[in-house]
Amino acid sequence: MSQPVNRYRCDLRDMRFLLFEQFGLGELLGKPPFADWTRDDVLAVLDGVYQWSCEVLGPLNAVGDREGCVLENGAVRTPTGFKQAWKSLYEHGWRGLGVPPEHGGQGGPMTVSILTGEMMSGANTAFNMYPGLTQGVAEVIAAFGTPAQVEAYCKKLHTGVYAGTMCLTEPHAGSDVGAAHTRATPIGDGKYKIDGTKIFISAGDHDLTENILHLVLARTPDAPAGTKGLSLFIVPRDRLDGSGSNDVITQSLEHKMGINGSATAVLRFGENGNCIGELVGTEERLGMKQMFRMMNLARIGVGIQGLAVAGAAYLAALEYAGQRVQGPHIKAWKDPSAPKVPILQHPNIRRMLLDMKGRVEGIRALIVKLSMHLDRTLALRASGGDEKEIEYHAGQVDLLVPVVKAYASDQGFQVTVSAIQCFGGAGYIKDHPVEQYCRDSKIFSIYEGTNHIQALDLVGRKLGQRGGANFQAMLADIRRFVEGSREEAGLGPALDRLQAAADALGQSAMRFLGWFQAGKTELIGLYANRFLEMMAQTTVSWVLLEGGIVAARAARDLPEDHPDRAFYVGKHHAALHFAHLELPRVVDGARFMSEEMRHSLDIPDAGFGVLGQT
Amino acid sequence: MSQPVNRYRCDLRDMRFLLFEQFGLGELLGKPPFADWTRDDVLAVLDGVYQWSCEVLGPLNAVGDREGCVLENGAVRTPTGFKQAWKSLYEHGWRGLGVPPEHGGQGGPMTVSILTGEMMSGANTAFNMYPGLTQGVAEVIAAFGTPAQVEAYCKKLHTGVYAGTMCLTEPHAGSDVGAAHTRATPIGDGKYKIDGTKIFISAGDHDLTENILHLVLARTPDAPAGTKGLSLFIVPRDRLDGSGSNDVITQSLEHKMGINGSATAVLRFGENGNCIGELVGTEERLGMKQMFRMMNLARIGVGIQGLAVAGAAYLAALEYAGQRVQGPHIKAWKDPSAPKVPILQHPNIRRMLLDMKGRVEGIRALIVKLSMHLDRTLALRASGGDEKEIEYHAGQVDLLVPVVKAYASDQGFQVTVSAIQCFGGAGYIKDHPVEQYCRDSKIFSIYEGTNHIQALDLVGRKLGQRGGANFQAMLADIRRFVEGSREEAGLGPALDRLQAAADALGQSAMRFLGWFQAGKTELIGLYANRFLEMMAQTTVSWVLLEGGIVAARAARDLPEDHPDRAFYVGKHHAALHFAHLELPRVVDGARFMSEEMRHSLDIPDAGFGVLGQT
Repeated sequence: MSQPVNRYRCDLRDMRFLLFEQFGLGELLGKPPFADWTRDDVLAVLDGVYQWSCEVLGPLNAVGDREGCVLENGAVRTPTGFKQAWKSLYEHGWRGLGVPPEHGGQGGPMTVSILTGEMMSGANTAFNMYPGLTQGVAEVIAAFGTPAQVEAYCKKLHTGVYAGTMCLTEPHAGSDVGAAHTRATPIGDGKYKIDGTKIFISAGDHDLTENILHLVLARTPDAPAGTKGLSLFIVPRDRLDGSGSNDVITQSLEHKMGINGSATAVLRFGENGNCIGELVGTEERLGMKQMFRMMNLARIGVGIQGLAVAGAAYLAALEYAGQRVQGPHIKAWKDPSAPKVPILQHPNIRRMLLDMKGRVEGIRALIVKLSMHLDRTLALRASGGDEKEIEYHAGQVDLLVPVVKAYASDQGFQVTVSAIQCFGGAGYIKDHPVEQYCRDSKIFSIYEGTNHIQALDLVGRKLGQRGGANFQAMLADIRRFVEGSREEAGLGPALDRLQAAADALGQSAMRFLGWFQAGKTELIGLYANRFLEMMAQTTVSWVLLEGGIVAARAARDLPEDHPDRAFYVGKHHAALHFAHLELPRVVDGARFMSEEMRHSLDIPDAGFGVLGQT
Repeated sequence: MSQPVNRYRCDLRDMRFLLFEQFGLGELLGKPPFADWTRDDVLAVLDGVYQWSCEVLGPLNAVGDREGCVLENGAVRTPTGFKQAWKSLYEHGWRGLGVPPEHGGQGGPMTVSILTGEMMSGANTAFNMYPGLTQGVAEVIAAFGTPAQVEAYCKKLHTGVYAGTMCLTEPHAGSDVGAAHTRATPIGDGKYKIDGTKIFISAGDHDLTENILHLVLARTPDAPAGTKGLSLFIVPRDRLDGSGSNDVITQSLEHKMGINGSATAVLRFGENGNCIGELVGTEERLGMKQMFRMMNLARIGVGIQGLAVAGAAYLAALEYAGQRVQGPHIKAWKDPSAPKVPILQHPNIRRMLLDMKGRVEGIRALIVKLSMHLDRTLALRASGGDEKEIEYHAGQVDLLVPVVKAYASDQGFQVTVSAIQCFGGAGYIKDHPVEQYCRDSKIFSIYEGTNHIQALDLVGRKLGQRGGANFQAMLADIRRFVEGSREEAGLGPALDRLQAAADALGQSAMRFLGWFQAGKTELIGLYANRFLEMMAQTTVSWVLLEGGIVAARAARDLPEDHPDRAFYVGKHHAALHFAHLELPRVVDGARFMSEEMRHSLDIPDAGFGVLGQT
């Protein structure tokens, strides 16, 4: 076998397309809060992060997978090279792109940060979890901390002096966060004694920074049961006054299917009664609200992870398909003397690749759309813009977060599976990167709220937010797009299918409302995941078709041999392919929901199977 | 976390149902060629193999995954315990159930062997590959070898003295087997010098037996290009006269995503010019025909692997769901004081489990159907039965082999993915078996002919076999089932949907014929996988509904508290759930094919993406 080229790749051209040709980032540059940012700055940052990701992070991806993290004498050792990469990351300032200048950052658009996040996560998912969580902790403290906390922690977190984690899960409190037992007992001065055990803590311990700030959800004395009784605490691993350990013990590390370079720890807080934390802000019982700010960012982050790994897997498969010669063209199927061709020429390989391309570019476009709504919110706020418009943009972010998290993680994983299939037997061995992508990405559908939690968030909270206005605004946007695109040639039945899908989505949302009103809560649980998928199929088709139209127009103006032409034509094909395949599934899903099948509910528990029988 | 119960489980009750309640194995017992077999024998064998699989193989599954195989001083060491398990396996005679008595076996029905294969493969996929390949080699030699070869090798292979492998793949000849370069030069007396390198050889070397017989595809001098020039050779690892090495060198082992207990080797034959093989039989250039006999059995074997791992993953998830307490019932969604329930009570978990159950039991039923056609062929031959009837049964086997291989491998893998999701975060760590099931099963869609090769086999060969008679006979069987079941209550629209799916399948088959005739070969490649999936969705729904009717009738006759009642009711729910979900997809697939979308073909190569761009 030829030696594999095991390096990171991403599609910078598509990123530039989304930012400047489809979603209009240029309108926001040069004005507050991005007054210092130009188009050239953005392009330079994308190029710089890409180069750095390829050169520094990419080569450590397989290393981290192979070596994993090791717990020795109570401390975690990260894989070879991670310490140097951490240092280099913060020297380059790549984590500070979207961070306000007062916290040591560059105050750039979220959308740019997000695309650099795709590159860093795609090059090395496990490594990127350490700075990702650290940034999330800084943002929680910036939003909810006292001025003293912001002053003491944010800059140190944003510049890589400290790292951070989020500690929610306990042995009996996973999806049911409110069941957490960890206790926080006030000892005065905003300080608390912390006592409890947290599990599945990503980046729970490591050797990358001088200290780690854990954000710990815990229950104060006499607090009510459930999520409402939880408060959030900053709990440093080591005392901040330099007096040594804060009684946070790394009890063990999990041995996982993937992301081996990320230490997943069981943390014991207060084993010896000496673990001290401080409340975030000054008020107790705001823990869930505060944590949710981080969770929302973390959920977008998981969507980016799904996109990142899928994008890397797609391009790895594409490169392999262009190089691997196997068998004759299908037109000469049974002729042993026919010339052998690269497998990229085989229709089934092309089909798999176009399926992957559509999903990757569609998810990327949906994430950029979400993120541009965020940036427009910031821009409107900075310029004293219309409150209604701000509400609209913020509402679209809320609505799309669970869709992005769940769909990008599910489909990102499936793209890696398809990538293995494109490689054939070579995809199953560790000489090539795709099997690691598959293993790494399986966790995305589980952590930061399982994808069912996302679906319940969508149908149980987001659909009804602002009296349903966010969802209705989205449907209206789709209708406006459909009506405004009637003159475009070459779309076939895609527009009609998009409108039919949006209509089916609207009807299905009403069906949930009916179930709520009729007390058929169990049907909501049964069909929530399917609805989320339908919403993703619709919105991804929409943004792909929108981009496909932009691309087709751009291609029309180019000479046949212009290097951008194939790019534009490719985007148009991917959009139509995806829409054609996926939009009818939305209508099918609505019909399926309308039948209210209850077999899963009605089957007796013992009917699932008898365990241990002979 | 509670300590996980990491043991093998399978559903013996469902196996008994399929054999004796749905598919009528009883009709074949006590008559040639199964004259010595009774129902009690079958039940005792199933019980015995289940117990042995749980006690001996199951505990070695994680061991094999963790330790893998090691190449040291040119020889492969298998994981701890594999040697003892091999010895125990052949002492118990579990590999000889379907083997003719003259080769040391017990001459039982293929269907019983196949279900014991599910258990052994489910308990330890990697281990079971060694005896599975060994049996395949013995069957090729029994079918095509000279009497002397049969005498010398078959019994030793069937009793575990020798092991065997199949050596097809070369660095540049994977799916394109006919591109193989390995040369065989006659040296007289039916002997040949072998010179070449084979890769991805499962069980390629190990320490389980005193010798290994490799079946090697190679090209004789002046043989034509392509598959027609290939001959098959028996190449022992060590000279059979005890004079030492036969110049077969294990160059390396692959490091894989899963099945780590199975040694996947690169084998160099004839590095020093001293590798001697003997032709299978007496005629050259029959290699592909001979190998295909083994391939067909191996393909059914891969279907069994998919079923086996999926079945184990399903029952692991079911057990976990019954034990893991998390969150309140969805009816008390937001009430923190509501009692917590096992996650089996959550609608979305029930939905995932019923999806899994339907697929597992449906694939098992389809494999048993295929295998019963085989057994009926044997029974008809033994009793001098009607040639037409033999042709019918043999034809159904041919037709179903690619469907079973591809669908069981694809869906088996997807079931393991769902199992991980049921476990949540716990599913991602190695304390529980499901992440290994997922890694182990990913190879099934690739080896023994990728699933696209299966799809091409189906649409390019099997549909048209005997002038299309096999396929037409299947459609007629479905119609007869639908018409004969009209009186059954409780099926809802399932029968109409099954008939609609069968009609759509028939139309789509005609579409392929049209494409062949119009020279649109590329559309055949593009849609072959989808058609195979449609055929699987239809046939699996059919056998599930057939079983569901049998189960519903049986349940009707039982008192409410009879322990079998929940089993029967469960099967009925699973059948309707699967049929309801999957049958409309067949009709959608036919519509999709009718649109003849060509985006994957028309996109310019460079439109897929620019690699390495900045």
